[in-house]
Amino acid sequence: MNEKGHIVKSFDTDLTEISNLVMRMGGLAEAQLAMAIDSLVKRDSELAQQTVQGDGKVDELEREIDNMAVRMLALRQPMAADLRVVIAALKISTMLERIADYAANVAKRVIAINKLPPIRPSHAVPRMAQQVQAMIKDVLDAYQNNDSDLAMQVWRRDAEVDESYNSLFRELLTYMMEDPRNIGGCAHLLFMAKNIERVGDLTTNVAEIIHYQVHGHEPEKARPKGDETSFATVTIDDKAEGSE
Amino acid sequence: MNEKGHIVKSFDTDLTEISNLVMRMGGLAEAQLAMAIDSLVKRDSELAQQTVQGDGKVDELEREIDNMAVRMLALRQPMAADLRVVIAALKISTMLERIADYAANVAKRVIAINKLPPIRPSHAVPRMAQQVQAMIKDVLDAYQNNDSDLAMQVWRRDAEVDESYNSLFRELLTYMMEDPRNIGGCAHLLFMAKNIERVGDLTTNVAEIIHYQVHGHEPEKARPKGDETSFATVTIDDKAEGSE
Repeated sequence: MNEKGHIVKSFDTDLTEISNLVMRMGGLAEAQLAMAIDSLVKRDSELAQQTVQGDGKVDELEREIDNMAVRMLALRQPMAADLRVVIAALKISTMLERIADYAANVAKRVIAINKLPPIRPSHAVPRMAQQVQAMIKDVLDAYQNNDSDLAMQVWRRDAEVDESYNSLFRELLTYMMEDPRNIGGCAHLLFMAKNIERVGDLTTNVAEIIHYQVHGHEPEKARPKGDETSFATVTIDDKAEGSE
Repeated sequence: MNEKGHIVKSFDTDLTEISNLVMRMGGLAEAQLAMAIDSLVKRDSELAQQTVQGDGKVDELEREIDNMAVRMLALRQPMAADLRVVIAALKISTMLERIADYAANVAKRVIAINKLPPIRPSHAVPRMAQQVQAMIKDVLDAYQNNDSDLAMQVWRRDAEVDESYNSLFRELLTYMMEDPRNIGGCAHLLFMAKNIERVGDLTTNVAEIIHYQVHGHEPEKARPKGDETSFATVTIDDKAEGSE
């Protein structure tokens, strides 16, 4: 990952090793999200249960990366670009751990909604998840190849995820209003959608850290934010008044 | 914060300074949450707007701490307890930034629900927030005094927050089912409650890092988890069937 040679040969080995650990953790987080979404599509509670259990492995890898980073900082006292690799590993692992956490939460909610009759908008959640899953794949490629351009491309794509979330949020609320029997299931789908939207945010954070690792500073422009649902009332309002 | 003397006098100054920055950031995050909750109680959209804007200052402090930590790691190459102070500052600042983020999100949702007629369960959210605000206050005291016992006491209190969240979650869903006109407002309250529950989780994470700073490792026992709403269907189910 680093071009310049080191006097102590095994420091390069350490750098490669910590990067590999981050890649492995990224692959695991990616797989956890894929399993969670798959369990939603297939209404497969057993697969969802496996996903919940799988989260422990991700946490373990985070601790491993953490310990290795602190050890490298303490014993190797890296400078400049090398220091950035260690700091980046420390930060990215925190983000990956949270991505996997959100995946496990989606899986928990799958188990819950599988006890209820199927509801229509559950198909919209996997559609939105696809966008986010593609972002994760690309951001991990960007990390592996130290490719800051690809990272920034991923970063910009988050606005589309936010748009999908906005429309899904409205769809779910409408669906709740149509029939109160949908409320329980839709509340879970609402949180699932929010979880996936947050995974998109975290993926852009990973992209920012890759930019930092390559250039020594995070990207300057504020990320385009498309999630406006915190402010949303119009549609809801109209609907609510319409049903009076 | 550190007992042993340093050859380079100003390194102690650096350690004190970074801890002070974390304290300042903690105080700011605490104030942001208090303002958000206050704006909810008073239905004060202007105060909520101020809270949303205030989040920028928290982000700025995080960057400042980040830069200072990286500078200290690069130039000072601290070891053992000193290294832990720097690592702890780096990690706690990330958590405080997220706490302030959640506060800003609560404030955004206050602006949204203020456009709707008042709904009853909005009083239950501040009650739950009080527990979390007390936890934040104590965890900052624990940080300031390097008091790992107090940190662990805070850590254990999160189970009560989770219980409050569980009952609030059910209350909100019931309220949605009673009258579809409540759905829009309740969806926002649902997310507010979840945000505050997450702030509680983050506060326990801060407590864990204080334990690490003092003892060199995080607490061993897994934190008692009380939030079971991801799995919740029973009440919802019953209600839904009852309204058929």
